[in-house]
Parts: sequence; structure tokens; C-alpha cells
Amino acid sequence: MAIAPESSLFVLARGGRSTAMAVSMVELHKRSYSATSLLLPSPARELYFSRSLSIPSRPVKRSWCNISSFSPVVMSFMTSSKLIDGKSIAKKVREEISSEIMKIKDSTGIVPGLAVILVGSRKDSQTYVRNKKNACEDVGIASYEVNLSEDCTEEEVINHISVFNDNSAVHGILVQLPLPRHMNEEKILNAVSIEKDVDGFHPLNIGRLAMQGRDPLFVPCTPKGCMELLRRYDIEIKGKRAVVIGRSNIVGMPTALLLQRENATVSIVHSYTKNPEEITRQADIVISAAGVANLVRGSWLKSGAVVIDVGINPVDDANNPRGYRLVGDVCFEEACNVASAITPVPGGVGPMTIAMLLSNTLSSVKRIHSLN
Amino acid sequence: MAIAPESSLFVLARGGRSTAMAVSMVELHKRSYSATSLLLPSPARELYFSRSLSIPSRPVKRSWCNISSFSPVVMSFMTSSKLIDGKSIAKKVREEISSEIMKIKDSTGIVPGLAVILVGSRKDSQTYVRNKKNACEDVGIASYEVNLSEDCTEEEVINHISVFNDNSAVHGILVQLPLPRHMNEEKILNAVSIEKDVDGFHPLNIGRLAMQGRDPLFVPCTPKGCMELLRRYDIEIKGKRAVVIGRSNIVGMPTALLLQRENATVSIVHSYTKNPEEITRQADIVISAAGVANLVRGSWLKSGAVVIDVGINPVDDANNPRGYRLVGDVCFEEACNVASAITPVPGGVGPMTIAMLLSNTLSSVKRIHSLN
Repeated sequence: MAIAPESSLFVLARGGRSTAMAVSMVELHKRSYSATSLLLPSPARELYFSRSLSIPSRPVKRSWCNISSFSPVVMSFMTSSKLIDGKSIAKKVREEISSEIMKIKDSTGIVPGLAVILVGSRKDSQTYVRNKKNACEDVGIASYEVNLSEDCTEEEVINHISVFNDNSAVHGILVQLPLPRHMNEEKILNAVSIEKDVDGFHPLNIGRLAMQGRDPLFVPCTPKGCMELLRRYDIEIKGKRAVVIGRSNIVGMPTALLLQRENATVSIVHSYTKNPEEITRQADIVISAAGVANLVRGSWLKSGAVVIDVGINPVDDANNPRGYRLVGDVCFEEACNVASAITPVPGGVGPMTIAMLLSNTLSSVKRIHSLN
Repeated sequence: MAIAPESSLFVLARGGRSTAMAVSMVELHKRSYSATSLLLPSPARELYFSRSLSIPSRPVKRSWCNISSFSPVVMSFMTSSKLIDGKSIAKKVREEISSEIMKIKDSTGIVPGLAVILVGSRKDSQTYVRNKKNACEDVGIASYEVNLSEDCTEEEVINHISVFNDNSAVHGILVQLPLPRHMNEEKILNAVSIEKDVDGFHPLNIGRLAMQGRDPLFVPCTPKGCMELLRRYDIEIKGKRAVVIGRSNIVGMPTALLLQRENATVSIVHSYTKNPEEITRQADIVISAAGVANLVRGSWLKSGAVVIDVGINPVDDANNPRGYRLVGDVCFEEACNVASAITPVPGGVGPMTIAMLLSNTLSSVKRIHSLN
């Protein structure tokens, strides 16, 4: 059901114009590939779709819970909630990054560099890589790209990583996922130097994120984006009850660790949770990264809760030229009558992910060159 | 207030007979040194003692909540709860380890080895190291010890670690904490080879513990001991609500990660939590590692909850020859009228910690030598 936060990223950034990308998203959908859900064990995913969570197991049909959140119809729902405008915050963040990079270039001549390794010829992956490249160019980050054939060996990929590890012009390295099935993803990702792991997925980074008194070199982009939205909207975290829905390695789990670092009292709701509604209703801050369309109903929310919706889920829409539209994990129009603030989908967390990737690349160049 | 789980370990194992150790524990108490509480930031510790949690900020005086849990008085409270007998489980675990080590020796000639590095001359640390050595000897693990003076350099400590890293007779390395103040603990601990990090505190191990689809090489001993108690008492974890009180790097946080790996729905209560009682009362499983005497009252527990009490806290006791006695975080006699099962203090989690250290050393030798 779900599409990776990344998948949505460029739909949002580019306004969903690309037909090729739309096709690739549907393909992703068909394959049930999702950065969020892929990392859940299969039984867990199964449970999310089979349990009596009062959600349908197929794309939702009821239009009242499926409206594009930026449509005039939805805007009219915004009676009591403040809209957390990720699109505009992400734009601001990118402008700040661009300005800082310009200053660094002017004063030191250093140009930040991001390397992306793409294996195989998946159309969706090609789109993501192209969009990352464009985003880098926009803010003044040099991008380096290696394209390898589907049947290349693990060693070839690791050799390229190794070259980028040693290349002082490269400050961040991304290996575009998914990798072909014959490759050991863990082994390949572990080859990326921790100093250049701008995705922040290295277990050493995650360990440091979990530990008091330690600091990760990089924080995973989507969780970092969620926290940045809370920060920029002055939403207090310390002492608040927070519920994170979903526990994937790339969103749910690191988001919970980040909230805890900020002294929230955190509960993680997942596919084995027996009473997700009851637990979620206790939260002052709800961050949903389940990848299930309209999972979180208005009745799940405490009055005045702040809602960050990481889910990006395609649902059938005969009125849409693409035959589907994107909705979050949260039933937006119900939620915005209960929540004090809420992110729309699209235009909420999605645009923040790539902004945080650029931010991590900037942090990396500053750390490597000891710049303030 | 709190004493490290480790501090209690040998009191329990040795029946609290050692006067030298009793003195050192009081010293620890005075210094407020605790493996649990030390890793909380100072303001957090302050809060635990100043907030209106209906607990006193000094050792508790009321005798009805301060009875040694193995006393006949307390046993008479055990009307509705099953006692989770850590002492007897730990004995069983040690016998199993001993038997397995004997088989390994007989069939391969390999002798498991544990190295301990002690810096300085703290009496308490000397006691712990001596007791670890004794426990190793009991099960057939060879122990290696290096004693360095208080004023040695970081480099000397790291050199010794390096020698043990390269010594094939050594399968586990422990650096006894705390280290002298002039040393960088993180730097020193990171020097221990992850393959021999039997304490499981390396961030790479913690990261793997947090991530789905990854496995840590070692699980920290006290959290592993808690889980082993639940397992041996056939207490179901999957789908249950679990509350962990305390979020230290060595107990609370890894315990929460372990419970989540077993598909519990986990909430972490800490010093900034506004309504710890209300949250704890929702839990089917409560694991308390706050280091605050009698923090958890009967009213904090749901009827039928399972309670694992990691806290070991000295409280004044004029009737005790030592002038104090040890109690847990949980008000035992109140809790055992509500809980379905509960660990006593002492005799609950304490004895499990060293058993798990021996277990980790055995796992290490099996992994290094590819033994089944």
C-alpha cells in the first residue's frame, strides 16, 4: 500500500507532473515496496492489512477521507487546526543551505559534494537519483553519479564506495535502494564511511542516536525532517506524550529515539499493538509512519494534539487522470477538527526529506573541514 | 539514592556478607554514583528527586515499604503474586553454562577467556572485579586481569585493550567502570573489539539492537537478564503493553529495545514524564530501572501486571547491623497484592546480570570458534 517517503519526495517537489514517475509509483505500489513497510517483517505487514483496525485492506474508496490536502475542499476543513506547511519550510531550509554553501565557497573555495551510486535500471530509482541531483544543483552541491548494471558484483559496488570514501571532494555517499536481490544490502551499506553516511542508516549512527551522552554524525533524513517541522513551528516536545506509529529502521524507530532525546515520553505503536487507538489518543504529538491510508481517524486523536503524517499512500481515484491520488496515514479532514496542528499529504513531511539530505551533506562538509 | 545493578550483584551473590563491600556501597550511595542514574543528565536526576512523585528525596523511613523481600514478613505478603526467583534462575543458568563449557573443553580443548581491566584502586571496583573472577572460575572461564594505577594514561589502557583484542585466548573484554576522571570513557570503550564487547555497550551493538533485521553481537547483561527471567517464567511479551521506567544506556534503553524486538508495545517513562503512575498502570509488563527506592507503588500497577524490579537502593535501617538495607524501585509488599508475578530485591534481577556476563562470554567463544 505504502510508498516510501522518498517516493513522494519528488512528486511533491515537482508537483506530481512526471508521468514516468507516476507510473513508477504505481509499480512500487503494486510491488508493495515501501521504505517504511519493507523493513517491517512480512507477518507484521500482513497484520497491518488484516487486523480489525477499521481500515480497509485495499485503497480507500470513501471520498470524504481521500481528498488532496491542498484542495480548496480540504482547506475548508481547516477550522481548528494550524497547517504545518512542510513545502514552505523545506523551501526556506533549502534557501538557508544554499546561502551557507555560497559563503563557504566564497571564503574557502570548498564545494560540497554528494555521490550517488545506482545499480540497475529501475525507472523509479533513476527518477529519485535524477531528482537528488537536481536538488543538489539548486543549492550548489556538486553531485557525483555512478551507474552500474543490474548484474554487477557486490565487489564492484563496494569498490566504487571505497573510491568515494577516499575522494576528498565527496562529503556524502548514498547507495540508491533497493539493490538487486543478489546483493547483501547490509554489507554494501556498511562499506560507506560513517563520516559520509548522509542517510544516517549506519548502525553506529543509530546506536549513538539511542544513547544518552553520544551524538550521531548524521540523523536519518525523514525523522530529522519531522523534528525540524516541530522545531520551526515552536511545538514543545519536552515532557509531552508522543506516539510514533510504525517502527521501521528508516522512519519510526529513529523518530522515536529523536523524540526521546528531546525528553518526550514516547510510545511506539506497531502492527502487534492491540489498542492503537487508545494509546494514540493519549498523545500530545502523533507521528505516523505506518504506510496505511487513513489508518489514524479523528477518534484516535486527543483534542489539541499535533499530528505529523509521514505516510504517503496511493488510493484509487477515478476522477484523477492518474487513476489514483496520494493520502497520508491520517484521515486529514477528521483530524483537522481535533488536532491543533497537522501536516498535509502531500506537502508536509515529504518535501522535508530531501531538504534534510542537503542539510546532512552541508553538515558533513563543515565537519570534515572543521568549518563553523 | 541508587546503586548500580552491578553493585548489588555481588551483595546478592555473596549474601551481602562483605563488610568492605557494604562500606563501598554506602560510599557509592553518598556519591550518588549509579550505573543507572549516572547516565541520566544531572537535571534529570535532580527532577527525579524533586518532583512530586509522592516519593521522599531521602532514604525512605516507613518500614512498611522497606522490608527485605526475602524476610518472612514479606513472604507473607505473597498472597496473589508469583515470586520470580532470579537467584534460582541465575544458578540454573550458571550450571548450564558450566556444563556447556565443559563439553567445549572436552571436545575442542578451547578454554573461554574473559579479560578485565581495572584502573585505580577503588574498593568497590576491586570487589566487583574479584567477584567476576570468582564467577568465571566457577563455570570454567579463564580470567585475565590487568590492574593499572589511577594516574596511568589513556594510551596505556588502550594498549592493554589492544593486546587483549589480539589475544586469541581472550573472548571477552571488560573495562571496569568508572574510569578516573581524566580519561575519556567513550574513547576507551570504543577501543574494545566489537567481537569481544561482552558488556554490549558499544554503540554498534546498541544500533543493531534497535534495528529490525540486524542482530547485536552482544546484549547488555542486565537487560538480557530481565528478558531471560520473562522467558524462563513463560511470560508472553508479544502484543503486551510494556512500560520501562528509566532510560539509562545500560539498562532502561536497551531493555526497551529488547521488549520491542519481542513485539511488545513499549513506553519509556523517565524523569520528564508528567504522569508516570497513569502510564505505568496501563502496562502488562513493568520493568523499573529508575534507581529510586519505592518509586512504584501498588497504585501504579494494573492488576495482574508482571513486575521486574531492576532497582537496588539502600534505605536507612537502624535495626540492620549495616545501618541500611536494600530495596528495589517497587514497593514490594504493595505490588505483590496487585501483580501476577514480581521479582524480589535482592534476589531478582541482580543475580542474573553476572549470569548473563558469563553467557555472553560463552556466546563469544562459540562465535569466534564457529562452535554450535
